[in-house]
Amino acid sequence: MQFRFTTALLLAAALGAVSAAQAQQPQAAKPAPAPLSAEQSDPLRMGWMQGSPPPIDKQVRWDDGSAFQFPQTRWAFSNEQALMPTATVRREGPASRLEVALRDDLDAVPFQTLDGQKLTWGEAFDAYYADGIIVLHKGKVVYERYAGALQPDGRHIAMSVTKSFVGTLALLLADEGKLDVNKTVASYVPELTDSGFGDATVQQVLDMRTAIEFDEEYTGTGLTDVARMTIAGGLAPAPADYDGPMDNYAFVQSIEKNGRHGGDFVYRTPNTNVAQWVIERVGGAPLAVQLAARIWKPMGMDQEATIIVDRIGTAFGGGGLNANLRDMARFGEMIRQGGMWNGKRILPESVARAILAKGDTKAFEATKYRGLEGGSYSSFWWHSGKGQTMAQGVFGQIIYIDPAAEMVIARFASNPVASNRDIHPITLPAFAALAAHLNR
Amino acid sequence: MQFRFTTALLLAAALGAVSAAQAQQPQAAKPAPAPLSAEQSDPLRMGWMQGSPPPIDKQVRWDDGSAFQFPQTRWAFSNEQALMPTATVRREGPASRLEVALRDDLDAVPFQTLDGQKLTWGEAFDAYYADGIIVLHKGKVVYERYAGALQPDGRHIAMSVTKSFVGTLALLLADEGKLDVNKTVASYVPELTDSGFGDATVQQVLDMRTAIEFDEEYTGTGLTDVARMTIAGGLAPAPADYDGPMDNYAFVQSIEKNGRHGGDFVYRTPNTNVAQWVIERVGGAPLAVQLAARIWKPMGMDQEATIIVDRIGTAFGGGGLNANLRDMARFGEMIRQGGMWNGKRILPESVARAILAKGDTKAFEATKYRGLEGGSYSSFWWHSGKGQTMAQGVFGQIIYIDPAAEMVIARFASNPVASNRDIHPITLPAFAALAAHLNR
Repeated sequence: MQFRFTTALLLAAALGAVSAAQAQQPQAAKPAPAPLSAEQSDPLRMGWMQGSPPPIDKQVRWDDGSAFQFPQTRWAFSNEQALMPTATVRREGPASRLEVALRDDLDAVPFQTLDGQKLTWGEAFDAYYADGIIVLHKGKVVYERYAGALQPDGRHIAMSVTKSFVGTLALLLADEGKLDVNKTVASYVPELTDSGFGDATVQQVLDMRTAIEFDEEYTGTGLTDVARMTIAGGLAPAPADYDGPMDNYAFVQSIEKNGRHGGDFVYRTPNTNVAQWVIERVGGAPLAVQLAARIWKPMGMDQEATIIVDRIGTAFGGGGLNANLRDMARFGEMIRQGGMWNGKRILPESVARAILAKGDTKAFEATKYRGLEGGSYSSFWWHSGKGQTMAQGVFGQIIYIDPAAEMVIARFASNPVASNRDIHPITLPAFAALAAHLNR
Repeated sequence: MQFRFTTALLLAAALGAVSAAQAQQPQAAKPAPAPLSAEQSDPLRMGWMQGSPPPIDKQVRWDDGSAFQFPQTRWAFSNEQALMPTATVRREGPASRLEVALRDDLDAVPFQTLDGQKLTWGEAFDAYYADGIIVLHKGKVVYERYAGALQPDGRHIAMSVTKSFVGTLALLLADEGKLDVNKTVASYVPELTDSGFGDATVQQVLDMRTAIEFDEEYTGTGLTDVARMTIAGGLAPAPADYDGPMDNYAFVQSIEKNGRHGGDFVYRTPNTNVAQWVIERVGGAPLAVQLAARIWKPMGMDQEATIIVDRIGTAFGGGGLNANLRDMARFGEMIRQGGMWNGKRILPESVARAILAKGDTKAFEATKYRGLEGGSYSSFWWHSGKGQTMAQGVFGQIIYIDPAAEMVIARFASNPVASNRDIHPITLPAFAALAAHLNR
């Protein structure tokens, strides 16, 4: 039962890493061997966790790190609850209406990737290793497809899409006057006073513009920052000689300051854990309970959601949400509709508008994010330069809201490549072509 | 993070222990110090897992064994999913109708415990440390009450009530001709050929009449059989020097034969794990999937259920089900109604009848089970000598079906005392008094 350390390294990706280092020197160096294709890595075909019990070479486990290794991720991402403890995000009542008007002309829609490859919408599904995609146009499901280990009534890890839910709660609490985003983190969470976050404003945290000693780099070896975050969060076992923080909040407490807050956007997951801590204090309840009360129950979500928790029950707001794909589509559509869902107000219009509005584009420029030129990052939401708002998580998770095209897309995936930076060259042109086709 | 070994010992209780040893020498010896009362041990009042994060002295954890220690169990039993990995038992569609006709005259119903104490129905709630009770009379909810960490839309560990669900699936597969209960275990699970279970019939396993080298005794020290079962099942961490089985099925494979099968009923949890293995082979799907397809979905259960899984995803059919209390009441009522629920057939009438029918009373006699004189145990269901059928799990879990009284009671509890043997002196007279009152 040796803990394979690559776990923590690969897992780091799971946190949505778009580090400054990556921005400067985009993935290059030695080319990795070509991974299995989507078809070759189909988890049912590969037999992961099939059989009672599954044979040793078909097991996907938490304790040996295999749950975070491709191609095992193609099974694990749809089954995190069976690998780790989770908090429940409760739903209630009958599932809310989600109108369906499927179209059979979409698979043939052609587009060209940013790298010049010609594909169709239908072919793109495997190209980004999708486990499920739903497209809403004018509020109706026009396309829905699943693969591998994900079923229509299942759940899939949302990775850093989780962060956008945390950001939404923050905007909501601020709108209600309960949270002042211009106050410091320490004023809400005194335990963080001596950490690097203490004198940052809540807004700087929500926009990831804090200056902290944390490198969201996952290609290093040994106990990198990301490895420590992973272990602390309970996402990976602690090596025998590990003596670092053992829960999410202890981990962010251990992070020191490094420079001046308020500079450029730099993607660092611990900001979200800090925002979650503030929200739990201000809202007076754990993240899962607030998500249930504010979103899952009022929206009539189809399925409960779960969030991975650490060893003392703190949810991993940075990336631990496991949700149903239709529910992700519902959430995106509710925001597109200005906070309304099936005639019921879920979010104040001002909150929905804030989510849909671009933030500080100058602070985003240095990321040199291909396909998102002219975009921004604010309150844990991404904005393209062309009017779309996105929640995104590594390995291909995305909620894509295109108000001009009246289109919302939710996608879960288990791509062998972590960063959406490397998946977007297919994703963004595909989504744009679909929008154009639906509205022509 | 030292593993307190008492965990495994206390936990053993969680498996429903009614060992032969206990039968011969009923609980006595040195009297334990009086535990906290229900009121004193109220988990909200005690503050377990409250705060973000909960302070050290308010944490309930898997890795230090506190999740299985009273009074922490008063919180943990309603929150197992946040402590351990779980498989999902899916539901679908709107929750099925459960008629409510609450009565306010029940709390005052008086009765006398088997030990001569005078209590009322209302007082009994705390006397057995109930977390929730529902009473159905003629199919309608006449009483419903929750306490502590359990809410109407929550889940609670069912402990060995789980076994009765496994038994029900076995009866169903047998009724459909897919399972021949007179065949040997080895004929369905060749991996068990060389174990103590290999030449037992499936029926002997379902009735716990196998002769195996396993002592369901939880007062021992060190690596007792029960401690090993607990560790293998992932319910407790493995001590550093442990080199025994590390999953549920490997554990039952390691159990040797001890005598002749077909003797008296002796309560030994591994029988259920073996039956589960047979059922997963015959039914071609994991326990959670079969429960969803056969019971949770067709019955329109209110909430998903979860089952604790070991490190390779095998459910703990011996006691790991976490379910909603109303759903437990629905299940009991469905059986009382001969397999029908809201006009829909869930189980063949023959299966429901088999569950309601007493088994071999002679094989049960030696247990000397106070209050269940003249009763029996068959296909993982308990029968009193007076016509009631019960699913029961330690620390006070029970589904109680009284056909003559047209009454079904479901109760979850977190009693400091493990064995229902010691809780029944209150439970059985209370339930009998309520039945008489409802039908007078």
